[in-house]
Amino acid sequence: MADQLIIFDTTLRDGEQSPGASMTKEEKIRIAKQLERLKVDVIEAGFAASSNGDFEAINAIAQTVKDSRICSLARANDRDIARAAEALRPAGQFRIHTFIATSALHMEKKLRMSPEQVLEQARLAVRFARQFTDDIEFSPEDGSRSDMDFLSRVLEAVIAEGASTINIPDTVGYAVPEQFGALIRSLRERVPNSDKAVWSVHCHNDLGMAVANSLAGVMIGGARQIECTVNGLGERAGNTSLEEVVMAAKTRRDFFDLQLGIDATQIVPASKLVSQTTGFVVQPNKAVVGANAFAHASGIHQDGVLKARDTYEIMRAEDVGWSANKIVLGKLSGRNAFKQRLQELGVMLDSEGELNAAFARFKELADRKAEIFDEDITALVANGGEHADADHFRFVSLSQRSETGERPQARVVFVSEGRELVGEADGNGPVDATLNAIESRVGSGAEQVLYSVNAITTGTQAQGEVTVRLSRNGRIVNGVGTDPDIVAASAKAYLSALSKLQAKAEKVNPQHA
Amino acid sequence: MADQLIIFDTTLRDGEQSPGASMTKEEKIRIAKQLERLKVDVIEAGFAASSNGDFEAINAIAQTVKDSRICSLARANDRDIARAAEALRPAGQFRIHTFIATSALHMEKKLRMSPEQVLEQARLAVRFARQFTDDIEFSPEDGSRSDMDFLSRVLEAVIAEGASTINIPDTVGYAVPEQFGALIRSLRERVPNSDKAVWSVHCHNDLGMAVANSLAGVMIGGARQIECTVNGLGERAGNTSLEEVVMAAKTRRDFFDLQLGIDATQIVPASKLVSQTTGFVVQPNKAVVGANAFAHASGIHQDGVLKARDTYEIMRAEDVGWSANKIVLGKLSGRNAFKQRLQELGVMLDSEGELNAAFARFKELADRKAEIFDEDITALVANGGEHADADHFRFVSLSQRSETGERPQARVVFVSEGRELVGEADGNGPVDATLNAIESRVGSGAEQVLYSVNAITTGTQAQGEVTVRLSRNGRIVNGVGTDPDIVAASAKAYLSALSKLQAKAEKVNPQHA
Repeated sequence: MADQLIIFDTTLRDGEQSPGASMTKEEKIRIAKQLERLKVDVIEAGFAASSNGDFEAINAIAQTVKDSRICSLARANDRDIARAAEALRPAGQFRIHTFIATSALHMEKKLRMSPEQVLEQARLAVRFARQFTDDIEFSPEDGSRSDMDFLSRVLEAVIAEGASTINIPDTVGYAVPEQFGALIRSLRERVPNSDKAVWSVHCHNDLGMAVANSLAGVMIGGARQIECTVNGLGERAGNTSLEEVVMAAKTRRDFFDLQLGIDATQIVPASKLVSQTTGFVVQPNKAVVGANAFAHASGIHQDGVLKARDTYEIMRAEDVGWSANKIVLGKLSGRNAFKQRLQELGVMLDSEGELNAAFARFKELADRKAEIFDEDITALVANGGEHADADHFRFVSLSQRSETGERPQARVVFVSEGRELVGEADGNGPVDATLNAIESRVGSGAEQVLYSVNAITTGTQAQGEVTVRLSRNGRIVNGVGTDPDIVAASAKAYLSALSKLQAKAEKVNPQHA
Repeated sequence: MADQLIIFDTTLRDGEQSPGASMTKEEKIRIAKQLERLKVDVIEAGFAASSNGDFEAINAIAQTVKDSRICSLARANDRDIARAAEALRPAGQFRIHTFIATSALHMEKKLRMSPEQVLEQARLAVRFARQFTDDIEFSPEDGSRSDMDFLSRVLEAVIAEGASTINIPDTVGYAVPEQFGALIRSLRERVPNSDKAVWSVHCHNDLGMAVANSLAGVMIGGARQIECTVNGLGERAGNTSLEEVVMAAKTRRDFFDLQLGIDATQIVPASKLVSQTTGFVVQPNKAVVGANAFAHASGIHQDGVLKARDTYEIMRAEDVGWSANKIVLGKLSGRNAFKQRLQELGVMLDSEGELNAAFARFKELADRKAEIFDEDITALVANGGEHADADHFRFVSLSQRSETGERPQARVVFVSEGRELVGEADGNGPVDATLNAIESRVGSGAEQVLYSVNAITTGTQAQGEVTVRLSRNGRIVNGVGTDPDIVAASAKAYLSALSKLQAKAEKVNPQHA
């Protein structure tokens, strides 16, 4: 029988570490629920000791998600591990993922510890974690540049203490498949008790080879867990793409011969939810989840793909959750129809109050847009959702105009800490004028580093989803706003980004890829 | 001494085959010039026999580009090959790339030819091509699913006739590195005269492994040419990304030990030019050319990358052509300063008339935007450029307004075949109203399938670059428009897309990956 390949999703931990991708607790819960529908084996929900926000998000996800195992990252010390265990306690099944650096440079410069001290701390950390669970993952940070003898001793020791998964990261994303696969194999051969643990790989895509490196870790190295993120979200060029690595293993089962628990029809919904939540767009020519991934210009290619059925398990658009837009609701749709559609889409709102608020936003939208698609509903819930009241800044109304040859003008009304403010300004374009109008009252001093708009459905009636990325004192945040009027969507996105800048930057940076 | 790895760029041929990526002759020339600056070894400029447009573009590129070899695709028949040779004649060095299917299914169903007839036709095609050049590339279409004995006989025969490059495509993008590398090696071993040709690989990214497959073709298989496109442009999930495969080979020279002629500092300018021209955005977490590719959230990672210097040839943002935005020009800048900056940016305008027109557009922009960046200048030249007069529809002016609670209104003035038209309409948002206003006079019946906006520089003053993708009767076109006012940019993009729909769809689809 084919071996099981464990899919470990770290969208909410390593993915969120990408500049601008930080998410609120509610956003993380929504993505975790989607990951559960996708049937990922393990959800790394955050790094509990890094901030109260991370702790609370992990804790809420542990309470909500039942079918996937929930995991928290923790440095190799008692405080971090106890904090992770506390956050994870409500989960049916949970994992503690602890790590420490094992390369000479990191041990000396960062940890200021001798190799023997590092070995002892790794051992004690795993022993401590055993109080809380039998499911313990250990990662040697900077493992690929550690002394192989020393690394093998560390791994042997942590497995002896009960670490059940050993994860080897390619921290800098520079691995090549053959070499990386051989590294994993060589470690498994050197570590005497290596068969007592599941081996795992964690790759980054800096040279465009994260998927191939991960699969080489499996095929050449014998790993049986892959760490990945939806849309390949992550720092720099991102992590291994969940959708690519999963569809490679499934489509080429003839070669890989692995069993996966993933429900691939939930891939595209997961991709859209993550891109709508973080504002990280997916390019059209992205494998599996790009808008063009299944579009063929020439008949011959379609034909060619059909013929590939003989050899491969063919990948079809519907298999990964692409479906035609469906008009589902309109302005005459009632509260029950809306509630039912939310359930069909797998969106769970936690209270009647949230449902009522979402329904009010739905009616408001239906007044302005005749056909409401599934994507509109998910955007409605994803952006300006139930946590909008917690935001520091809230959009009220906008008036703007532009005319060729004249300076565009805008007037924005918004609420800041319960107080209504009115800003007026001009600008190079209506969006510039609108953002200037907001800044005339806020004076944030933030620098705008990215602005993009995507229509969330096809057709001219589509709503615009705007992402604004702001930078201030080295902090980067993304704000996302949706509206049929893209100038209004820009104002909402800008206010959302400003709200995030207001939120305290209390989080400790994880020190681990 | 390290072997030379030949970089064969097919952005203008296979990349352009992506739905919506079709380019005008002027756009192709501009990209070809940038590919020359990038020092790619071979530029596949099109498929001469497929359309007059392709023929003319190849011919113009052959006249313009001196440092790279120019190539045209041609089916394995005399007419196609003669047409390719005619288009290529002005080039200093040129290549003819001919192909025929060698899989049983393709030979029987598509070509309706026996294997012996196919072998003979391949042989005759290469013999015919030898009249024109010694540089002949041959691709067996659907090669990876052909009978290996038959395929080896075909390849031996074409090499004996003088084919100097043998290219093996992974047509459906389902290869895995080990297997694909082994396929190339096995072919090279079976074909007795294989050492008389350079072997080449052409991969697609459907499973996210195009870069690794290409490099396995080189390392395991012994290929010495990689076919690729800028930004991985291409049908479905696209082709092998030039920037990824080049930077993998350069950064990991310790492993690959290959020489490349590429000037990597021209990679980011090439990426921007191709994305501005085609409207195919690059996602932020794209390797090498994504906005985040070199952005680090946590100090530790930056540190980690620095330490990687010991092991790898480090990849730095400036090495691939990322540079900070520079304010280069403003409204007081004169024609000479503008001309000089164009030269520094490597933009060549063909006549004084074109320069004057571009300068007029520059002055118009500088009246509305105080700081003009390099990206503004390239956009100015790339979009609404010198070929704007040839467009069927041309933007004149726009007036629009929106106010929360009211229906947005727009009035657009544009020229169609020399006649000024005025459209007025309302819509769900100002962009919807603007496109409705245009449609009220055009009635194109096209469906809008994609809409996106990206700011082309950072800062609130940035211009919006809008891409509109329209579909009508199975034809897909992208229009791109740039303006500080994104509603006006949307009108320009829409009119550009409508103009492309007007242009005759005369092109024969290439039948080859």
